[in-house]
Amino acid sequence: MTTTVPHFQEELDRLKARLLEMGGMAEDRVRSAVKALVDRDISLVDAVIDGDGPINQLHIEIDSRCVKLLALYQPMAADLRAILSAVKINTDLERVGDLAINIAEAGRRYLGQPAVKELIDIPRMAEIAQGMLRDALDCFVRRDTALAQQVLDADDALDALKTQVFRELLTYMLQDPHTIEASLDLILVSRHLERIGDHATNIAEDVIFMVSARDVRHHAH
Amino acid sequence: MTTTVPHFQEELDRLKARLLEMGGMAEDRVRSAVKALVDRDISLVDAVIDGDGPINQLHIEIDSRCVKLLALYQPMAADLRAILSAVKINTDLERVGDLAINIAEAGRRYLGQPAVKELIDIPRMAEIAQGMLRDALDCFVRRDTALAQQVLDADDALDALKTQVFRELLTYMLQDPHTIEASLDLILVSRHLERIGDHATNIAEDVIFMVSARDVRHHAH
Repeated sequence: MTTTVPHFQEELDRLKARLLEMGGMAEDRVRSAVKALVDRDISLVDAVIDGDGPINQLHIEIDSRCVKLLALYQPMAADLRAILSAVKINTDLERVGDLAINIAEAGRRYLGQPAVKELIDIPRMAEIAQGMLRDALDCFVRRDTALAQQVLDADDALDALKTQVFRELLTYMLQDPHTIEASLDLILVSRHLERIGDHATNIAEDVIFMVSARDVRHHAH
Repeated sequence: MTTTVPHFQEELDRLKARLLEMGGMAEDRVRSAVKALVDRDISLVDAVIDGDGPINQLHIEIDSRCVKLLALYQPMAADLRAILSAVKINTDLERVGDLAINIAEAGRRYLGQPAVKELIDIPRMAEIAQGMLRDALDCFVRRDTALAQQVLDADDALDALKTQVFRELLTYMLQDPHTIEASLDLILVSRHLERIGDHATNIAEDVIFMVSARDVRHHAH
């Protein structure tokens, strides 16, 4: 039997590979944005702010791959859920890319002022968020719901750090009003990192839904 | 011809009606959260924080309606795009519901402290964001791309107000460090409202994509 239509499974694998690339790009952008902040590297800040072309292109490409897969193969059950999950994950990753820009923008303002403190918790938050994102995408590819549950659990660590960052910076601001503006930027960065963790959580919840057709989205927290 | 399967168009109309209900719920929750803040009404704050059951239920129901429509009718072209848009819009509306909780949580902290100032810009931001949300859903139902473009434009007004709120509160904080904590909560509320506008923007962009199969998502801003 010859056919010009590639096998569905092949196309689905290609879609997953592209989603992984998208995840890698999003993660790289977050890493660069935080590195720019820690190293006080304004040219890296600018590179992050101006560098969203490739990830945006990939976002559009993946979306149109999903539409084509649905239209061409009209998949059922598990395959249908996998593609719908891909649509959602693609959206989450695009937002993570946007959050990298938000971090870089706060970074640009922050670098225009004297440093408030050595940055320790924010890079830790970034590492946790990036790890959650990687694990969430791993779950998707390997259909691993146990790992998905770990991603949901890691979110608590991220929230705790966010609260810690907030309290510490509040102390600085109260002691010395000159640090208010810079501290606000760091608080915003910590919120952006928390939201990256939220997107990883969304992805993990979608994977659990995809694999088990069980909806954990409003019971996980 | 008799059939037990309801007509696709009927089911699609029902899906749209449920999405509109979801939008109404999300908007109500935002309105209540901001009203609670302005009126210093702690029992309304609590009602918003504890009241996400119905919207979460509807979120799950709409998602499963979309899956069923895709599986049962295997729609093509415009209908396929409409359902994929519904999946995305449903996600955006659920996040708006979450943001109402975030506003209420900031409100709860804010009400534990003396008021910083009379709240004028924050209710205005809330009105703009709610209007954007309503218009975005109208676009979806009426397939109105001109109105969708207006939603994208309204986002600039919201961003400008957010910047104004930030600058004003920064002045308060610098003048009187006792206002720092309360001011931070108001800044966070203004960010949450900005994000509600972002979700309305996402919906409007999805409508333009759905109607014209033209992707404006990375050129609109």
